[in-house]
Amino acid sequence: MRVLGVDPGLTRCGIGVVEGRVGAALSAVAVEVVRTPASDEVAQRLLAIEVALSDALVRYEPDVVAVERVFSQNNVSTVMGTAQASGIAMVAAARRGLPVALHTPSEVKAAVTGNGRADKAQVTAMVTRLLALETAPRPADAADALALAICHVWRGTSTGRLEAAAAAQRRTAGPVRTAAEPLRSRLPGRYAR
Amino acid sequence: MRVLGVDPGLTRCGIGVVEGRVGAALSAVAVEVVRTPASDEVAQRLLAIEVALSDALVRYEPDVVAVERVFSQNNVSTVMGTAQASGIAMVAAARRGLPVALHTPSEVKAAVTGNGRADKAQVTAMVTRLLALETAPRPADAADALALAICHVWRGTSTGRLEAAAAAQRRTAGPVRTAAEPLRSRLPGRYAR
Repeated sequence: MRVLGVDPGLTRCGIGVVEGRVGAALSAVAVEVVRTPASDEVAQRLLAIEVALSDALVRYEPDVVAVERVFSQNNVSTVMGTAQASGIAMVAAARRGLPVALHTPSEVKAAVTGNGRADKAQVTAMVTRLLALETAPRPADAADALALAICHVWRGTSTGRLEAAAAAQRRTAGPVRTAAEPLRSRLPGRYAR
Repeated sequence: MRVLGVDPGLTRCGIGVVEGRVGAALSAVAVEVVRTPASDEVAQRLLAIEVALSDALVRYEPDVVAVERVFSQNNVSTVMGTAQASGIAMVAAARRGLPVALHTPSEVKAAVTGNGRADKAQVTAMVTRLLALETAPRPADAADALALAICHVWRGTSTGRLEAAAAAQRRTAGPVRTAAEPLRSRLPGRYAR
């Protein structure tokens, strides 16, 4: 699975492409950051982001696009531009018939560091390690876009497998069970509840 | 001048086209509301809005697109979708080389009713009167989109004339004066400061 992650932003919009699947090594395909000058009009800045994202979708041919889910509780001064850039990314993907997945910042942090409240340095360090990069991706927006893509490779696939397992369970004659049960029964005794 | 106004929203996005200039009667060219079901994915909803807006830009050939300026202080539950839809509208216009103008809700209300805090009923009533419509535009998003376009016809033109006047002032040898001065000097004595 090839995932194109987008860390949306008006000043800096991170794009990170990762290839991988659960249980196998991940590889970084590309990472770039689109910058637009604050002196330009918002419409022109959004258009520049749209052109760059559309271009990246053509060049990297991802199977799915993962975009950071923006909340209005975030930094008020930048949240409007971030929301607008995320909308542009979603439309660019949907126009090409690509599935779009949204992940929250804490889901992304939890996926790559194990801690939903990890700081930027920790996220960058884990992205560098997980993708076996020689140098850490800079700026933080580049690392965040790669982290989003990694998060989707792991969450997207596992969610898909859990759903498939649940659907298979429902199709059999046996009692309805949640998808989590077979996994839990494989845990060692001391963790079983 | 033909202005296409956009009242951005994910559930209902108003589009209103108005033709006019300062000192002449206004006329409504078109009004429509794009609706997207809440059950659809956000990416698909934004794409539907983009397709409808792009189609309207082709059909109505406006000279300028006026979009409501979204603030994060607005209703938190809908502000993200509103911001995203406004970004989509700006990009759709910018991609066609059309100028984009942003007006705040209170600027729009002040333009059409004289009161920046007017309620929706007042805005709808004035839009109906100013455009000499036989029936009031419904829903409120339709009236708001027309109000935005009216606001731009008046504000856009007057701002342009003030700027032109200021530029002319600067070009002459006389002292630098603000553009507002010539207007203020035309006020009757009792209002002069």
